[in-house]
Amino acid sequence: MPSSQLGIGIVGYGYWGPNLVRNFAGSPAARVVGVSDLDPGKLAVSNRLYPGIVTTQHYEELLKNPEIDAIAIATPVHTHYDLALAALRAGKHVLVEKPLAPSADLVCRLIDEADRRGLTLMVDHTFLYTPAVQKIRELLLKKELGDIYYYDSTRSSLGLFQKDINVIWDLAVHDISIIRYILDEEPIAVSATGSCHVAGSPENMAHITLFFANACVAHVSVNWLSPVKVRQTFIGGSKKMIVYDDLEPTEKIKVYDKGITLDAPSEDAHQFRIGYRAGDMWAPHIAPTEALQTEVEHFVECVRTGAQPISDGISSLQVIEVLEAASLSIAQRGAPIFLKRLRGIPERTRATA
Amino acid sequence: MPSSQLGIGIVGYGYWGPNLVRNFAGSPAARVVGVSDLDPGKLAVSNRLYPGIVTTQHYEELLKNPEIDAIAIATPVHTHYDLALAALRAGKHVLVEKPLAPSADLVCRLIDEADRRGLTLMVDHTFLYTPAVQKIRELLLKKELGDIYYYDSTRSSLGLFQKDINVIWDLAVHDISIIRYILDEEPIAVSATGSCHVAGSPENMAHITLFFANACVAHVSVNWLSPVKVRQTFIGGSKKMIVYDDLEPTEKIKVYDKGITLDAPSEDAHQFRIGYRAGDMWAPHIAPTEALQTEVEHFVECVRTGAQPISDGISSLQVIEVLEAASLSIAQRGAPIFLKRLRGIPERTRATA
Amino acid sequence: MPSSQLGIGIVGYGYWGPNLVRNFAGSPAARVVGVSDLDPGKLAVSNRLYPGIVTTQHYEELLKNPEIDAIAIATPVHTHYDLALAALRAGKHVLVEKPLAPSADLVCRLIDEADRRGLTLMVDHTFLYTPAVQKIRELLLKKELGDIYYYDSTRSSLGLFQKDINVIWDLAVHDISIIRYILDEEPIAVSATGSCHVAGSPENMAHITLFFANACVAHVSVNWLSPVKVRQTFIGGSKKMIVYDDLEPTEKIKVYDKGITLDAPSEDAHQFRIGYRAGDMWAPHIAPTEALQTEVEHFVECVRTGAQPISDGISSLQVIEVLEAASLSIAQRGAPIFLKRLRGIPERTRATA
Amino acid sequence: MPSSQLGIGIVGYGYWGPNLVRNFAGSPAARVVGVSDLDPGKLAVSNRLYPGIVTTQHYEELLKNPEIDAIAIATPVHTHYDLALAALRAGKHVLVEKPLAPSADLVCRLIDEADRRGLTLMVDHTFLYTPAVQKIRELLLKKELGDIYYYDSTRSSLGLFQKDINVIWDLAVHDISIIRYILDEEPIAVSATGSCHVAGSPENMAHITLFFANACVAHVSVNWLSPVKVRQTFIGGSKKMIVYDDLEPTEKIKVYDKGITLDAPSEDAHQFRIGYRAGDMWAPHIAPTEALQTEVEHFVECVRTGAQPISDGISSLQVIEVLEAASLSIAQRGAPIFLKRLRGIPERTRATA
Repeated sequence: MPSSQLGIGIVGYGYWGPNLVRNFAGSPAARVVGVSDLDPGKLAVSNRLYPGIVTTQHYEELLKNPEIDAIAIATPVHTHYDLALAALRAGKHVLVEKPLAPSADLVCRLIDEADRRGLTLMVDHTFLYTPAVQKIRELLLKKELGDIYYYDSTRSSLGLFQKDINVIWDLAVHDISIIRYILDEEPIAVSATGSCHVAGSPENMAHITLFFANACVAHVSVNWLSPVKVRQTFIGGSKKMIVYDDLEPTEKIKVYDKGITLDAPSEDAHQFRIGYRAGDMWAPHIAPTEALQTEVEHFVECVRTGAQPISDGISSLQVIEVLEAASLSIAQRGAPIFLKRLRGIPERTRATA
Repeated sequence: MPSSQLGIGIVGYGYWGPNLVRNFAGSPAARVVGVSDLDPGKLAVSNRLYPGIVTTQHYEELLKNPEIDAIAIATPVHTHYDLALAALRAGKHVLVEKPLAPSADLVCRLIDEADRRGLTLMVDHTFLYTPAVQKIRELLLKKELGDIYYYDSTRSSLGLFQKDINVIWDLAVHDISIIRYILDEEPIAVSATGSCHVAGSPENMAHITLFFANACVAHVSVNWLSPVKVRQTFIGGSKKMIVYDDLEPTEKIKVYDKGITLDAPSEDAHQFRIGYRAGDMWAPHIAPTEALQTEVEHFVECVRTGAQPISDGISSLQVIEVLEAASLSIAQRGAPIFLKRLRGIPERTRATA
Repeated sequence: MPSSQLGIGIVGYGYWGPNLVRNFAGSPAARVVGVSDLDPGKLAVSNRLYPGIVTTQHYEELLKNPEIDAIAIATPVHTHYDLALAALRAGKHVLVEKPLAPSADLVCRLIDEADRRGLTLMVDHTFLYTPAVQKIRELLLKKELGDIYYYDSTRSSLGLFQKDINVIWDLAVHDISIIRYILDEEPIAVSATGSCHVAGSPENMAHITLFFANACVAHVSVNWLSPVKVRQTFIGGSKKMIVYDDLEPTEKIKVYDKGITLDAPSEDAHQFRIGYRAGDMWAPHIAPTEALQTEVEHFVECVRTGAQPISDGISSLQVIEVLEAASLSIAQRGAPIFLKRLRGIPERTRATA
Repeated sequence: MPSSQLGIGIVGYGYWGPNLVRNFAGSPAARVVGVSDLDPGKLAVSNRLYPGIVTTQHYEELLKNPEIDAIAIATPVHTHYDLALAALRAGKHVLVEKPLAPSADLVCRLIDEADRRGLTLMVDHTFLYTPAVQKIRELLLKKELGDIYYYDSTRSSLGLFQKDINVIWDLAVHDISIIRYILDEEPIAVSATGSCHVAGSPENMAHITLFFANACVAHVSVNWLSPVKVRQTFIGGSKKMIVYDDLEPTEKIKVYDKGITLDAPSEDAHQFRIGYRAGDMWAPHIAPTEALQTEVEHFVECVRTGAQPISDGISSLQVIEVLEAASLSIAQRGAPIFLKRLRGIPERTRATA
């Protein structure tokens, strides 16, 4: 293999790890050097499929391996911080499965560490790299929808209950990162409610409202106990509206030329007159590209060029601050939690780097 | 016509009035005597279709008409209280489109008035009379779902914006009445968020969480600005789960034999072990009966026998107290509002009758 | 009522008759004068809903009634010919539920009779008047789809078995009339297979292929014994393709910018190189107009002006000749039946008028 | 690797070959020894993913390899016969992608060759190994549907146009093999129509009717030029009906307790009275097993034990005789083609072995 390929080590070969291996292996610019997992049975699977990849139960061996330039971490959330920190300290670039760390504080430390060492730190917010979300972002950037009124998403299915995080850290994290990516605005406050139906487990169902400075509002509904899988997002604008259904095989995005029209109020009237507009629907072609392929190539590119990844530490920090605020609100049955000026923190963080 | 038929007067011949006329006209036990509306154009439509029904622009004429035993009111919400009170005072039984009145206080006064006069007061919570909701209630009563974990509903479409009420008084009222009808428990608190995207209009989008004393939670999402119509409810239980889609032509209710199983924890463990169960799905046959037909016959029957209607004043009061709490919570960005002991109020109210 | 309204008599108040009454009643240019049915119970229903409409068990009374200008016939198929002929002979314009008569011969006689008397003869091919089919016709006329490759339709549901006609005369008649309306070409031959699963009943399931002089082909699948209702048509063209689902509440027509592209063959190659094109999908807004309303107004207009209706006798003749050929082919297990030059017949028929 | 594993060679690493490799590699009882393909680029992909598998441009090398016990063939149809024959002659067991060979005659020769040598010959009729088709077969064997009235299937999508076979050899082959597998009856005749919309290409759209000795009928509609993918089968019975939609993620099979009921005719009546029955719908749980995994394990098992595979040469012969009859009927615009007594041929064929 040519030395120009980026050497990759993958930590964790459970649910997500094999996808990382397959996509890095499919990228001409990268080469998977080693895989670590505590479970020898999982390593045996890797050995059978990829005899050329070194396997080990000790991730430290990956850190010591000079052929490995970057580490991709796909382990339980409570291990992310330690593993990522060790990898950065070993001089490796790092890609971490979402969420980056279980608290904003720990995320800040990882950002600091990466900045100080000039290493790439990227979070695996896979949905940002789907052709569907990229098309939505493009439509919003071009103001096709007019002013954005709302983002309303439902993300539910049966399982998998996780032990170390609740449903918002598992599922809502996707929507919060998408909202951040496609909207110009930062949320100013969060109200959330959640419930737990299994004694001793974290919340398995939650509803989160994000307030913005303008009239825009975002709502995210997540559920680990749904009888059917739902991945549906409605985005309403003053001119058009989008229905994004990630389970549709081809027509994932439908753009509706529907909405209300407002007649200018007459002098003595305080209300607009509302009319309804029902026009055509349009489903732009969405390429069937695998998001993770796009993402690993973006990671390799950022490592090579030093460019800031789309899903960098800062963006992850903003996502996690929303998740923390949501958790706080859940504990207070929906009481609104106001967010600190988010942009400020990472700037300061970076300034100290 | 035989005098044994209940004479009906309908106030308001706009959107809902014609449905009331058609269904009362289709009931052998009732006879539509008169229709009133302020708009002579609408009365002309009634005249063309039903030359035998008296029409008038003055609803007082219906109240004076001795052939009319009961008044059905299908006018804007802000007129409900005055029209219903006048009808009761004229000795007429009353059926009122939902919501019964714009505040719990006014509802209490109507309940008092009807009780004092021994007249039937019923609210047009049409969904309670659909075969689908009745089937769900039957399944829940038989404990088919086990313990109820959640009720999660989305009810949205494009329009119609109403001027005197917001979207929760228009759409969430359906779900709150269904929740009350199918669940044993009373909600203890409400958190709601809402937003308004048309200056000078009431909220057109809202999300409401109802907390109960047990682990059960209910969530209702309503939206007047949705590009597509959605009428979907998920009900999760410890044994089975329901998806109720009112837009499905025939399979409105699907019962999923899916869920989680909990292994008893070992002595030193504090957590249950969670397993997943994916079994068959079953869609019970739902008769294609029109709910409003069932409802008007129930109304006629209650008038005849003096029985308490399923959707009586008390049940309406409970619904409206939740709506009021939700409105209050919206104003405080989701802060929880605790409900008074609801059952208590109507009992006292009734006691004074 | 002003004398300028067209007086209408409806024969048959079973399944379709009430729809005719309601729509003629809703047309300002028409007035329903009388309704006849052999069943007094059905007439009682009419009396209750429309006290102003005369009812009778003897349809001859409608024919004698000078206030009646036109007769609409909604009775079993085997009675269509006699009833329509009698109405024409009584000088009434006639609208007949499809199919116009049980044989092409009888249809020719009705056309002759109407032509001779200068009366309007129209068949109730309702689907031609739906906004969806009219939109499809408009797209095809504008060559939006390029060359038409195929029309492939499925129309099935559970019931209603009819005693005097088989499933193709009940359901395929819709598609054959639509095909005739939207395509420029006349079919030249028919192959059909059908089967009967109830001893003593006519075919309840059939598949029909229509051959055209060019490469276009049409296929119609009909079934009275389907567990679910299907009303779906695919139309393929060289440039675009349509999926028309009549059960969709709003997006009945979807236009796909999909297809194959052909590279010109190189000199020594005899085959084109095929490429695939997957572009956007577009669902034009379809007005929610009721087809029967459009149709009765078209009928009234044709009576007034003497214009030829879209679904006139000639078009019905062409449809019925296809149905007859299909029945013949079914008896021969799919053997192709070549159609006579259809256009010729009606022209001769008309020439003799 | 233990010698007890069956050594596998795969010929063809285009569309289907990688799936064969992945599934044989995932089977503990098999080991993929070598892969051959004419295209070195495709071999490079195999090398990158599976460094331990030998690759070659010369399939003869696989035949000579003593570590290879069985050959799986996934090449264009016109090469199947020669490759399979060579493999059998080299003493290898053979699994061939469907259709086994381009004519019934050639299939007979392969059956003879395999029988003579006592080798396993199996065709890759993947759908027979899906949990959905196996569940349908189980329901039919248990007579859950009563008498089978019809099998009606649509299988369409955009592409892929194949050069050496038409759409029925590509797509209808699935349904014909399923019909053979789930029904007791053999078809007695075939009527088919087909059309070609690309000059110089084989038919890209076809409709096939299979007649049986009893009232049962089967219809298969296939299309390479459909704007959307459809994989839908309706199976009607006297007691229940099935809708099988292979694109549904979980509820692939829905069993409807719907149908008609026949009252015994009175003495002088020749017709039954038909009633309609609309009961519950039931979707049995379908395991998410990959069909190809089940299939390769069945192949390995048959090689080991000498058992006859479900999709053996004989069953393939019966499928191909139907395909040949359909092609003949298409050339005659639907004229029915009667099938020889199919069961007879293979018995004789085998007898001579």
